[in-house]
Amino acid sequence: MLSRDQLKHLDAVFNPQSIAVVGANDQPEKVGYNLLQSILEGGFQGRVYPVHPRHREILGLPVFQSLAVIGKTVDLAVIALNERSTLEAVQDCLRLGIKGAVCIAGGYGEIGPAGQELEARLQDLARDGGLILIGPNTLGMINTHAALYSTFYPLRLPRGGVSFITQSGGVGLALLQKCLDEGLGISKWIGVGNRAVLEFADYLQYLAEDETTTVIGVFLEGTEDARNLVQTAARTLLRKPVVIYKVGGSGAVEDSALTHTGTLAGSHRVYMDIFRQFEIPTAGSLGELVAAVKALSLAPLPAGGGVGILTHTAGPAIIMQDELARRGRFLPRYAPETIQKVKEVIGPNPPVVLRNPLDVAGLGFLPPVYGRIAEIAIGDPGIDILAAVYCLHRNWRFPTEELLRIKERSDKPLVACYISTLSGAARDVEMMSRHGVPLYITAEEAAWGIHHLLAFRSARIGAMGREG
Amino acid sequence: MLSRDQLKHLDAVFNPQSIAVVGANDQPEKVGYNLLQSILEGGFQGRVYPVHPRHREILGLPVFQSLAVIGKTVDLAVIALNERSTLEAVQDCLRLGIKGAVCIAGGYGEIGPAGQELEARLQDLARDGGLILIGPNTLGMINTHAALYSTFYPLRLPRGGVSFITQSGGVGLALLQKCLDEGLGISKWIGVGNRAVLEFADYLQYLAEDETTTVIGVFLEGTEDARNLVQTAARTLLRKPVVIYKVGGSGAVEDSALTHTGTLAGSHRVYMDIFRQFEIPTAGSLGELVAAVKALSLAPLPAGGGVGILTHTAGPAIIMQDELARRGRFLPRYAPETIQKVKEVIGPNPPVVLRNPLDVAGLGFLPPVYGRIAEIAIGDPGIDILAAVYCLHRNWRFPTEELLRIKERSDKPLVACYISTLSGAARDVEMMSRHGVPLYITAEEAAWGIHHLLAFRSARIGAMGREG
Repeated sequence: MLSRDQLKHLDAVFNPQSIAVVGANDQPEKVGYNLLQSILEGGFQGRVYPVHPRHREILGLPVFQSLAVIGKTVDLAVIALNERSTLEAVQDCLRLGIKGAVCIAGGYGEIGPAGQELEARLQDLARDGGLILIGPNTLGMINTHAALYSTFYPLRLPRGGVSFITQSGGVGLALLQKCLDEGLGISKWIGVGNRAVLEFADYLQYLAEDETTTVIGVFLEGTEDARNLVQTAARTLLRKPVVIYKVGGSGAVEDSALTHTGTLAGSHRVYMDIFRQFEIPTAGSLGELVAAVKALSLAPLPAGGGVGILTHTAGPAIIMQDELARRGRFLPRYAPETIQKVKEVIGPNPPVVLRNPLDVAGLGFLPPVYGRIAEIAIGDPGIDILAAVYCLHRNWRFPTEELLRIKERSDKPLVACYISTLSGAARDVEMMSRHGVPLYITAEEAAWGIHHLLAFRSARIGAMGREG
Repeated sequence: MLSRDQLKHLDAVFNPQSIAVVGANDQPEKVGYNLLQSILEGGFQGRVYPVHPRHREILGLPVFQSLAVIGKTVDLAVIALNERSTLEAVQDCLRLGIKGAVCIAGGYGEIGPAGQELEARLQDLARDGGLILIGPNTLGMINTHAALYSTFYPLRLPRGGVSFITQSGGVGLALLQKCLDEGLGISKWIGVGNRAVLEFADYLQYLAEDETTTVIGVFLEGTEDARNLVQTAARTLLRKPVVIYKVGGSGAVEDSALTHTGTLAGSHRVYMDIFRQFEIPTAGSLGELVAAVKALSLAPLPAGGGVGILTHTAGPAIIMQDELARRGRFLPRYAPETIQKVKEVIGPNPPVVLRNPLDVAGLGFLPPVYGRIAEIAIGDPGIDILAAVYCLHRNWRFPTEELLRIKERSDKPLVACYISTLSGAARDVEMMSRHGVPLYITAEEAAWGIHHLLAFRSARIGAMGREG
């Protein structure tokens, strides 16, 4: 566990006043160019010092020949040099009292014995010098709330509460791209790389306390420190949601994971068993991870486990019911009074069977009628969360206004599934997100979102029980 | 099995010269309005006759008081009346020699005994009269190649080779929306509804012979006629790919399926066992079904099962490898000569481990270099299909030109995974699709696409073996 001082130190590295980009470069295909550009275009408000022995000016900024000649405080050094020169730059950081470094280069533990030796030296340097070192072998890190984009993939992301800890830069980018498609706001993004100094558990501990982080998603290939990860995740669940996507269900990717970040991934089944034992919510795919953090970052928690589904088209609701049941979640019946009230809206003998999922078919597709039925359904005493399914139609709008009015009047969470293209629902996704309603365009994702609201609720209760 | 005459008859219904919309309406919230609008806006080139006892003109067309007063040949009647009036309209069709009807209304077998009796009468009428009857309780059907959009969800779809048979209108719409997002061309779309007259097997038999259909996707809740479905699917696999998404893995949705289209869904495990026995390719989700038909409709079939992965970022390739391995597909090694040739491009001692997935990291991300390595990888004698993974970057383009040049020179299929938002890759998706390269924005989907190319290849070999 990190000490209070270390946590404060780590927070300062995520919120620097000044950054040196060591190995800044003027060639757009170089990491050192992209890092600098990413930081500048990201809108970072502090001072930025490009460092390179020969260049004079890059992207309009004067270049310093070395870290030493900057002559001012530097809070964070982002090092875009090769694996050997990175070691020298880290030594420079220590000499100059620089407290944080992001080391981009690969060529360490993941390539075998020679690299392992280099990595051990890097680790010793950082530990002995009390340096916060992220990486090596990482795409970098992001803190949108500090307009800090220290990766070599220049991006701009909407600010929000979702933070990611990822063992893969590429998967981490895929998560961010999917969040962009979903209109989801991001807080921190950390590419852990080879974790020479800081482990998953350390980052989790930090994000657990980070005020701008409301939910944490983790992409995990493997770690030797699984026990620490799980225990920290369980503690974190007392404060905020954590969802882990552990790749490797097939048992066939251990070699690839080893050569990726130098980690023996270990048996997937063992991970799953220990996650289950500590009730750590897990996702089975990247799509499920994003669906989960979407629901958890937007919706309030349900007070109980009763899921009601309302739809005007049976199939997508059946898929939702199936996905929920695969995760051990079954739908309660609506109360007879609820069904009675629905009949008062759609007629006493509707040519549909009223149960849960509540499928009102052609009788309930007009938004005002749909809204009235949704309000009845969410009012059912056995229903703690309502899923509203609706299909895009050329001649009428989505029932967004109606659902948002219900949301205003009810404490129960609402999740929407609008069958649509991504662009067809974009405006509604934005409106719903702003008011705490996660809106998905597929039934699977909507079911995953609901499952994870319930999973966090149970996990937190479990964690509280263990804490006593 | 349908006779040759019945098949010809069914084909005529999918390619009508004239359509009557019975129950056409001038109110935009009515099914009868939306059906007529859908047919007109879809660009249908034949004659269209709205039928309604009181209206005079709808959407600029003169309205006929009854089917009888049209006084001209009608090839297809689309009936948007309630469950009882539908029966009368079907009797009118038979009297007037109309050979095809789409019956939209629900209120039949799916609502219990009273509805079952009505449905039996509908069935008897159609069978005795030799009427092709689609439905009842269906969203309708589409044949893009006849500009025929006889559903009450007006849409325009790009023409192509993908046909769907769906037991749910809503899920069927979700499939089409996802295909729109993926830039995928559609041929036929059939909402089977309660299947009073025509079964899954009948539609499969028809699409197997349909020249504009190159691949068939099926969404299945359940059918009493599973044996016929499976045997027909197995025969169809001799001609073209079929992929079935059977919902219900949880075992919890039988009741919902029963009240949806009046079908006892039956045990999911029994379905899976019989699908496996006949080697019918199955999808586990709507996303997998679309990923499958995308690959199968665009790419040539691989000559063998050797999958090569090329990437400049490890994580997504590990996800692909994991998804493939979960389906029993493992990656072969690249030949030593291949690795040697790659080293000639990126240097003799690269700080990366060269295996499969082949991760060239920062050494191979520039499109021209990436293209050279891709060409080496696809040339490996043990590789039958190459998956190329690439991440969207602000400062360089995707290696689309390079990959398409390779595609021109190689018979082996190529599948691309560009980590990106949907809009970020839209132009490349379109270019790649035009040249037979399925391009996905997630690693999971790319893996599913590859799996289904290989699954169809094996299934076809198996089906040929059984046929002798």
